Amino acid sequence: MIQPLDRSHEIEYQQKIDNLNKPKGSLGRLESLALQICLIQSTSSPALSHPCHILFGGDHGIEREGVSFSPREVTWQQMINYTRGGGGVNMFCRQHGFQLRIVDVGVDYDFDHNLYPQILDCKIAHGTDNFLYRPAMTSQQWQEALAVGAQQVDSCWEEGCNIVSFGEMGIANTSPSSILMHLFLRLPLEECVGAGSGLPPEGIRHKCEVLRAAVDNFRGDLDDIAPYFCGFEMAAAIGGMLRAAERKMIILVDGFIMTACMLAARHMDANVMDYAIFCHCGDEGGHRLMLDAMGASPLLHLGLRLGEGTGAICAYPIVESAVRMINEMDTFAHANITKYF
Amino acid sequence: MIQPLDRSHEIEYQQKIDNLNKPKGSLGRLESLALQICLIQSTSSPALSHPCHILFGGDHGIEREGVSFSPREVTWQQMINYTRGGGGVNMFCRQHGFQLRIVDVGVDYDFDHNLYPQILDCKIAHGTDNFLYRPAMTSQQWQEALAVGAQQVDSCWEEGCNIVSFGEMGIANTSPSSILMHLFLRLPLEECVGAGSGLPPEGIRHKCEVLRAAVDNFRGDLDDIAPYFCGFEMAAAIGGMLRAAERKMIILVDGFIMTACMLAARHMDANVMDYAIFCHCGDEGGHRLMLDAMGASPLLHLGLRLGEGTGAICAYPIVESAVRMINEMDTFAHANITKYF
Repeated sequence: MIQPLDRSHEIEYQQKIDNLNKPKGSLGRLESLALQICLIQSTSSPALSHPCHILFGGDHGIEREGVSFSPREVTWQQMINYTRGGGGVNMFCRQHGFQLRIVDVGVDYDFDHNLYPQILDCKIAHGTDNFLYRPAMTSQQWQEALAVGAQQVDSCWEEGCNIVSFGEMGIANTSPSSILMHLFLRLPLEECVGAGSGLPPEGIRHKCEVLRAAVDNFRGDLDDIAPYFCGFEMAAAIGGMLRAAERKMIILVDGFIMTACMLAARHMDANVMDYAIFCHCGDEGGHRLMLDAMGASPLLHLGLRLGEGTGAICAYPIVESAVRMINEMDTFAHANITKYF
Repeated sequence: MIQPLDRSHEIEYQQKIDNLNKPKGSLGRLESLALQICLIQSTSSPALSHPCHILFGGDHGIEREGVSFSPREVTWQQMINYTRGGGGVNMFCRQHGFQLRIVDVGVDYDFDHNLYPQILDCKIAHGTDNFLYRPAMTSQQWQEALAVGAQQVDSCWEEGCNIVSFGEMGIANTSPSSILMHLFLRLPLEECVGAGSGLPPEGIRHKCEVLRAAVDNFRGDLDDIAPYFCGFEMAAAIGGMLRAAERKMIILVDGFIMTACMLAARHMDANVMDYAIFCHCGDEGGHRLMLDAMGASPLLHLGLRLGEGTGAICAYPIVESAVRMINEMDTFAHANITKYF
């Protein structure tokens, strides 16, 4: 059960921000961020502690339909690569002091866990089923995947974490994300489908046709959408987001796929959005549209489309700047500055 | 004399970026940043060292015409505040490990340098003259102010700095910045004038009328624009930018006022632009227009309008991410990933 933000002290927090030594509103987005974090943490002196990045991996049955530029084996290869520190996500975690958790929820590969003890084994299956013909996962698998995400967040929380970001590795996972966007937001499918990791125009057309057929075959209602189309890594992220909000943790939302997961999480409990900071708007077709439809204003626009949660981690210093502002910036009164507003 | 970038190894640098373990182009803006930094430093393994932020302070004769929401004394009060660590610029310098230099080039106040030894005394005059009636400064003062900026950059460079940002404190300095934009870019004055630190609409109209009258009184040519209208803090920043580019240092360009200074610097030597990273597009009326006209694509859009160079410092981690990418990210070959492009 996610609590909505307690707004009973909102005026007090806003006054603290307004009395900092700067023209009112002049720190722009940092000011609204600081207010949100005060509200999440119920304090005018918030703190970020032990940031964690949870990267879920899973394969997709729909990959068999040629909807992705990259082949399926890249999922497991990259999972191993992350254990060696050479991925995009690794650099940014090192840069900003994030603990990285690499979680196999459904990769189509048997990792040697003696060789790769860093890959946490929470495998539900060797990839999802092909949602062109049938649901990607069973109800039980859906519940299991949500629980994997929740457990990972609990584990971070127990270590003192109050800010968490999620990433994903799962070849073809822009496909289910586009469908989530299409069905939850009732936007035309063509506006929800993009190039993923590098499809050419004819590839995008084919992807669109496959996804159209999959949607036509789908007979469920709104509650069935996510289990029918998601990958295990997406379901785990959804479960993680919901649990993080229950625990009043800050959720850093990455790009297209994680925004689609937040959309699914929002359908399950709308209060989850109170805890979300949208970090990056990428170039994937439809991402800007999805963010707009959710009323989300992302921190960065850097054209990233690597996935892995890199956009969320890159935005962390901005979030930290907001927290520093409210804690470290002098007030006008204390600084002996003519208050000019 | 500023050298243009040596592009003889550009293909080699680009190939290194393209062979990193990611879909080609998928790190977006970080990739173009990395290439620019390789070109500036003439290496495929660039490094950032000893970042410095130079904050120049100066007052403006034009402030007497009521063009600013904030009164003149805020300039000296804030300069003192920076020595105490409570300003916006202080927090962000601490956060990102910048050395901060606070330089009085023309503040209308006699600082007690025993009390405030952190304020470097390079004062040329107690503020500029009022450019509504006559040039803000003499040719000699212009040269002196340029030299102050160059000396500060030299001093940073001698300490091992290869990346520098500039900030300003000078009540009313959006006014000369708007005029620089208007005259150098031949854009309508009204599109170049904004609210500064918080003018209401009638204040903006008055500011526009004053600046229109000042421009009408101006009889010089393009080379005379900057000395006629700039503040000493702006002239010092221009001198600093030019010297930093001569020394092949990376220049982080902050918001509206520093973008206007880069415009003036570009007029003096167009090669300076090769070394510039535009860090932030703020809400000040005209800033987006000025950046577009300069072909500049800023890293952040956070609605900051505090000045002091805060937007430049906040963008530093993005620059650092680009450098980490090219140095720390694995190649496809080494990572044993199926190369899928």
